[in-house]
Amino acid sequence: MPEDPAGRDTTVSTTRRVLKLTIAYEGTDFAGWQRQPGARTVQGCLEEAMAAIDKRPVSAVAAGRTDAGVHAWAQVVSIPVRTHLSAAVIQRAINFHLPGDLRVTDVEDAAPDFNARRKSTGKIYRYTMLAGAEPDPFTRRVVWRVTGDLDVAAMQHAAALLVGEHDFASFQAAGGDVVTSVRTLLRSAVTREATAPHYIRYDVEGTGFLRHMVRNIVGTLVDIGRHRWPPEAMADILASRSRDRAGATAPPQGLVLVRVLF
Amino acid sequence: MPEDPAGRDTTVSTTRRVLKLTIAYEGTDFAGWQRQPGARTVQGCLEEAMAAIDKRPVSAVAAGRTDAGVHAWAQVVSIPVRTHLSAAVIQRAINFHLPGDLRVTDVEDAAPDFNARRKSTGKIYRYTMLAGAEPDPFTRRVVWRVTGDLDVAAMQHAAALLVGEHDFASFQAAGGDVVTSVRTLLRSAVTREATAPHYIRYDVEGTGFLRHMVRNIVGTLVDIGRHRWPPEAMADILASRSRDRAGATAPPQGLVLVRVLF
Repeated sequence: MPEDPAGRDTTVSTTRRVLKLTIAYEGTDFAGWQRQPGARTVQGCLEEAMAAIDKRPVSAVAAGRTDAGVHAWAQVVSIPVRTHLSAAVIQRAINFHLPGDLRVTDVEDAAPDFNARRKSTGKIYRYTMLAGAEPDPFTRRVVWRVTGDLDVAAMQHAAALLVGEHDFASFQAAGGDVVTSVRTLLRSAVTREATAPHYIRYDVEGTGFLRHMVRNIVGTLVDIGRHRWPPEAMADILASRSRDRAGATAPPQGLVLVRVLF
Repeated sequence: MPEDPAGRDTTVSTTRRVLKLTIAYEGTDFAGWQRQPGARTVQGCLEEAMAAIDKRPVSAVAAGRTDAGVHAWAQVVSIPVRTHLSAAVIQRAINFHLPGDLRVTDVEDAAPDFNARRKSTGKIYRYTMLAGAEPDPFTRRVVWRVTGDLDVAAMQHAAALLVGEHDFASFQAAGGDVVTSVRTLLRSAVTREATAPHYIRYDVEGTGFLRHMVRNIVGTLVDIGRHRWPPEAMADILASRSRDRAGATAPPQGLVLVRVLF
């Protein structure tokens, strides 16, 4: 690396370079996205690997800060860097540094003001339940196994009631510090897998999500699938704006961030 | 449990009871099927769990003794027991004792002379390759990732040459102690996944398999898929009866015992 007589790095570009990374991870062994001292996190692993390439500390911003145990098929991350290596070379190099449960599937140069969190216009999540069947050793890390079968028709009816702009306070984790709990869902649908009917999916697309929102919706849908409440109760739970009215938080391992929209 | 005055168990049946278990396991964290001192093996875990139910040591026989890292969707195991519990109760109880990467998917009473290894008439294995794509965090435990794409048509041609009765000495692990290396394959076929074309499957059904036979065939098929040899070379390699002529042993994690035939 060229240095001037005072030892300062002179390769710094005058224009800011921001990379847009698409990453996939199996969340099982991560304490979530966000860097925490002493914990193995996605942000921590990614920043460390990129710092080795950029030869200086870097700071990564994710479109969605997934919780411990939650997976991602295509999370999007922005990282300002100084390296002049091509995007393709950076992708190969960073994957060499990363563990097998975290992969960079795409690297591209973004606009200098690109910020994955601020620029994202929506996200798609999927939650998978395994109902009324023995746990499967091959899917146990990515599903929530519930005992007994679920009434999928009732869950479909209830899920559809969430589409549109609503105050989702009933499905917000306690202690959230957001300005408003109003969010818009464009899709909210339950389907039974045609070829593997014990697997039930909840697919949801929204412009934004509150903390634990998808998992709290799923907990409520499962209560409805078990006939604890009729499907129409979903509308009352939503209108109540009370976390106490909704179901328990579904466990993290069934949840995957499928795609980020820009 | 009823005991006679001398303290001996009097519940022993006069007729021998043999259970036929169907089990699924993700082989990643097992040192293979076979019990070994100090190692976590499928046989060890299964015998320990069943012994807790049968209140005495038990001995399990598997149709196929899978190697370390090899998976099973439906391995079949025979275990003589003395318990009078129903098959359904035994299944629930044993799954309570077993770890999440090993599940009993079925228990039934078999004929008193049932032995899973001796009575099996065939087995179906599948080997999955991920070719020319980034490793996927969600499938990495169950595929062999090969760099570059593979010529699937050439592999299909070569795989078909193995169908029938042949001496498979070229594909036998060194140090095998079998009487004969003649085996019969009823199916030997390569397919590219229609919906995920980077995934390439090798499906093989045979009346019996030599140690490492499937993995040695796969290693050879990949050499052919990479044009190291033409497809017709498979016939010469087979005819040579020489392990040195065939390809390297493919790694275990791509292999799964799909089904046992009786």
